Amino acid sequence: MSGGPATETDRLKAWERVSAAPLTVLSVLFLVVYAVPILRPDLSPGLRDVCVATTVVVWLLFWADIIVRLRLATDRRRFLREHLFDLVVLTLPMLRPLRAVRLVMVVLTINRRTELWARGRLAVYVAATTALLVLFSALAVLDAERLASDANITSFDDALWWSTVTITTVGYGDYYPVTAMGRFVALGLMIGGIGLIGFVTGSLATWIVERVSAAADRPVAATGDDVAALRAEIAALRRRLDPDPADQSAG
Amino acid sequence: MSGGPATETDRLKAWERVSAAPLTVLSVLFLVVYAVPILRPDLSPGLRDVCVATTVVVWLLFWADIIVRLRLATDRRRFLREHLFDLVVLTLPMLRPLRAVRLVMVVLTINRRTELWARGRLAVYVAATTALLVLFSALAVLDAERLASDANITSFDDALWWSTVTITTVGYGDYYPVTAMGRFVALGLMIGGIGLIGFVTGSLATWIVERVSAAADRPVAATGDDVAALRAEIAALRRRLDPDPADQSAG
Amino acid sequence: MSGGPATETDRLKAWERVSAAPLTVLSVLFLVVYAVPILRPDLSPGLRDVCVATTVVVWLLFWADIIVRLRLATDRRRFLREHLFDLVVLTLPMLRPLRAVRLVMVVLTINRRTELWARGRLAVYVAATTALLVLFSALAVLDAERLASDANITSFDDALWWSTVTITTVGYGDYYPVTAMGRFVALGLMIGGIGLIGFVTGSLATWIVERVSAAADRPVAATGDDVAALRAEIAALRRRLDPDPADQSAG
Amino acid sequence: MSGGPATETDRLKAWERVSAAPLTVLSVLFLVVYAVPILRPDLSPGLRDVCVATTVVVWLLFWADIIVRLRLATDRRRFLREHLFDLVVLTLPMLRPLRAVRLVMVVLTINRRTELWARGRLAVYVAATTALLVLFSALAVLDAERLASDANITSFDDALWWSTVTITTVGYGDYYPVTAMGRFVALGLMIGGIGLIGFVTGSLATWIVERVSAAADRPVAATGDDVAALRAEIAALRRRLDPDPADQSAG
Repeated sequence: MSGGPATETDRLKAWERVSAAPLTVLSVLFLVVYAVPILRPDLSPGLRDVCVATTVVVWLLFWADIIVRLRLATDRRRFLREHLFDLVVLTLPMLRPLRAVRLVMVVLTINRRTELWARGRLAVYVAATTALLVLFSALAVLDAERLASDANITSFDDALWWSTVTITTVGYGDYYPVTAMGRFVALGLMIGGIGLIGFVTGSLATWIVERVSAAADRPVAATGDDVAALRAEIAALRRRLDPDPADQSAG
Repeated sequence: MSGGPATETDRLKAWERVSAAPLTVLSVLFLVVYAVPILRPDLSPGLRDVCVATTVVVWLLFWADIIVRLRLATDRRRFLREHLFDLVVLTLPMLRPLRAVRLVMVVLTINRRTELWARGRLAVYVAATTALLVLFSALAVLDAERLASDANITSFDDALWWSTVTITTVGYGDYYPVTAMGRFVALGLMIGGIGLIGFVTGSLATWIVERVSAAADRPVAATGDDVAALRAEIAALRRRLDPDPADQSAG
Repeated sequence: MSGGPATETDRLKAWERVSAAPLTVLSVLFLVVYAVPILRPDLSPGLRDVCVATTVVVWLLFWADIIVRLRLATDRRRFLREHLFDLVVLTLPMLRPLRAVRLVMVVLTINRRTELWARGRLAVYVAATTALLVLFSALAVLDAERLASDANITSFDDALWWSTVTITTVGYGDYYPVTAMGRFVALGLMIGGIGLIGFVTGSLATWIVERVSAAADRPVAATGDDVAALRAEIAALRRRLDPDPADQSAG
Repeated sequence: MSGGPATETDRLKAWERVSAAPLTVLSVLFLVVYAVPILRPDLSPGLRDVCVATTVVVWLLFWADIIVRLRLATDRRRFLREHLFDLVVLTLPMLRPLRAVRLVMVVLTINRRTELWARGRLAVYVAATTALLVLFSALAVLDAERLASDANITSFDDALWWSTVTITTVGYGDYYPVTAMGRFVALGLMIGGIGLIGFVTGSLATWIVERVSAAADRPVAATGDDVAALRAEIAALRRRLDPDPADQSAG
C-alpha cells in the first residue's frame, strides 16, 4: 500500500488506515460468534463448531494485523511497549475461562475506528460506552453462570436486568453471580457503575456551577490581553517622553 | 383568535396561549383515567369503559391540538422536525403494552404550562420532578406487574415504596419487578435516581466551594471594567502629551 | 430578667438566653422518655406511666416557652410566621402515630443551643448530624415496626444496623420496614443518605480542585487591589502633567 | 546510630529511619499470622500456637519500638499526645474481640514506610488503599462471622465478594454480616465506600471542569505578575517626569 519511496511510519499509518474497516467487521463477527452460543445454548453441534472455527480464524487475523504493524514500525521496541496491553488481550482470550476478554478485544478494535465520533460530545460517548458495558457484562455473566448448579442468572433477559441493577448500584439481590468468573465480571461492572455515577455527577456539578455563575451576572475578570493592551499604551507614552535612540532613531 | 391582520406565527402563539389551560386540565384527566383502573382493579366494567372512552377522547383532542398547531405554523417542515418527539409520544400510548407512555404525555403537556414557575428556583423544580417520577413509576410498575403470576409488587403502597427504594439506589430487594415492562420502568427510575444524586451532589459541591471561598475572604479578582477604567486614564494622559489633530483639533 | 426599661426585643433575647440550658435538659429528657419504652418493651406499667407523664409535662413546658416568647415578641404576627414550623412540630407529636416527630422537636431545641459549635468545622457538624439521624431513625423505625406481625426489624441492634445500611444506600435487604410509618422513617433516612453522600463528594471535589490547582503552581490572578494601586499611580502622573486648579491649588 | 554529639531529635529520626524496614517486615508477618488461622480454620493446633506466639512477639516488638521512640523524644509529653492513636491501636488488639484492630496497626506501620510512593499520583494511592480495605475487611468479617450459628459469610471467597459488593454500595444481600463485630467491619467498609465514590466523582468533576474550560478556549485571566510589570512601567514614567532627589540624584 502507498508504494514508492514512502517512509516506514507512512507505511504503518497507511496500513492502519486501510485495515481499520476490515478489522471492525472482524471484531463485530468475533462478538457475534461469542454471543450466539451464549444466547442459544441449544445450538446444533455443527453451528457451534462454525462459531469456534470463526473465533480461531478471526483471532489469527488479529494476530496477523499486529505482526504486520510491528514489522512496519520504525521503532519496534517502542511499538511493543506501547501495545503491551493489546498483546496481553490478544493472548489471553483463547484460554477458555478467560474468554470474556474477547469482548475487551472487540471494544479495543472498534475504538480504533471511532476516533472520529469520539471527538463529538463526551456525553454521547459515555452513554454508548455504558450501554456496551451493560450488554457485554450480561453476555459474559450469563456465559459464566449458566454452568453453575446454584446459579440464578440463567437467561439473557435476567442477565441484562442484573447488569442494569448492578451498574446503577441499586443491587436488589433478586439475581447475583455465584461463580468466580461471574463475580469478576460484576467487579468490572461495579467499577464502571461508580465511574458512570461520577461522570454524571461531575457533569451536573459543572453545569450547575456555570448556570449559577451566569445567573449571578458576575463581572468578567480582566484577561491577560486586557493588561497587554494597557502595557502597549504605557510603553508608547514612555517612548514619547523619553525618546530612546535605538527605538526612535528617526525622531 | 386574535383576529385582524395577524401573521401566522402570531396566530400559533395565540392558540398556544389560549389552549394551555384546557390542555392542562385534559392531561390531568388523562392521568386520572390512567391511574384509577390501576389503583382500583375491582372497578365495575361500566366505569372501566368510561375510563377507556375518556382516554380515547382526550387522546383525540391532543391530536387535534397538534394538527391545529401544524396548520398555523409558518414553516411546517420545521414544526414537524421540532415536535418529532411529541408526535412519537402521541402515537405510541394507544398500543396497550406501551400505555405507560401516556404519563410522558401528561408530563410534556403540564411542562408547557409550568414555564413560569420553572424559572423559579432549580431545586424546587428538581424536587417536584423527582416526586412525580416516583409517583408515576409506582403507577406504571403496578400496572405492568399486577398481571404477572410471580409478581411481588401487587399493591400501590408497595409500588410507591419500591420506587422510593429504587430511585435512592438503596434497593433492598424486598420488592422488584419481574416483567419486561416493569423492568423498563425501573430502568427509567434508576437513571432518574442517578441524575437526582448527581444534582444534589453537584449543588452541594457548588455551595461548599462558594462557602469555603467566602470564608477564606479571598481578594477579589480585577475585573475587565477595572482595567478599562485604567486604560481610559492612560489614554487621556497620552492625549495630553501628544496632541493628535484628529482628537484635539481645538487645542 | 434584665429588669428596668428594657425594650421588648431585649426581654425576648434575655428569655431565650436564660431558657436555653433548661430547654436543652428538657429535650434530652424528652428523648430519654421516648427511647426507654422502645428499647425496653418489657417495662413495668408503672415506669411506662412515668414516661408518658414526663412526655406530657415536658411537652407542656415547651408550649409554655413558646407562649412566653410570643408574648415578649414586639411583632407577634412576624414571630408566628417565623416559628410556624416550630408550632407544627409542637402540635403533631401528641398524636400517637406521629410520635416520631418528637425527635425533630429534640433536634430543634438542641440546635438552638449548638449555634456556638456549629460555627466550627462543617465536617464535624455533618458527622454529628449523620450519627443522630442514624440513631433517631433506628429508634423511630423500631417503634413503628415492633407492633407489625410480619416485621423483621424487632431489636434495637437490628434497627441500628438497618439504618446504617440504608443511609449508605447499600441496602442489603436483610432488614426492611413493612409498616407505613417505618417506611416514612426510611424515606427521611434515604434523603439524608443522599445528602450525606453529596456532602462528602462535594467536599472531596473541592479539596481535590484546590490541591490540584496548588500543585500546578498556577500564577495568582491580579486582584482589584492591584489595579486600584495602578490607578492611583497613573492619577498622580496625570496631575503632575496637567495641574487641575481644584486638585492642586497649592501648586 | 549516628554516634557523636547528635541531639536527641536527630537520634529519634535516625532510629525511625533504621527501624522502618524491620517494622515493615514485622507488620507483614503480623498480617500473615492474623490471616492464616482465618483462611485455614483446619490448621493443626501446633501451627495455631506458632501463630499466636508470633503475634505476641511482634506485638511486644511494636511496643519496644514505641518505648524507644518515646525515650529518644525531646518533648515526651508532646510525643505522647501526637501518638495517642498509635498507643490505643497498640493496646486494643490483644483483646480477642478487637483483634481486627491488628489490621489498622499493619496499615499504620506500612504507611510510615510508604511516604515516598504516596507522594506519587493520588489516584494510585486511593486505588491501593481501596484494594487493601476490601482485602482486610474480608479477613476481619470472616473472622467475626465464622463462629456465628446463623452466619452466611463462611468462606474467604464469599467474604471477598461481600466486601466488594458493600464498598460499591451495590449491596445485593446474598451475603451480610449477622454479628456485632462483623457489622462494625461493615460500617468501616461502607464509610470507605462513600469516600471512594466521593473521590472518584470529585476527580471526574475536576477533570471535566478542566477539559470543558480548555475546550472553550477561554481568555487567560491577568496575573498579579502582569500587573506588577505594568506598575514598574508607570513608576519609571513618573520618575522621568517628576525627578525625585532621593531617586534620581545623578540627574
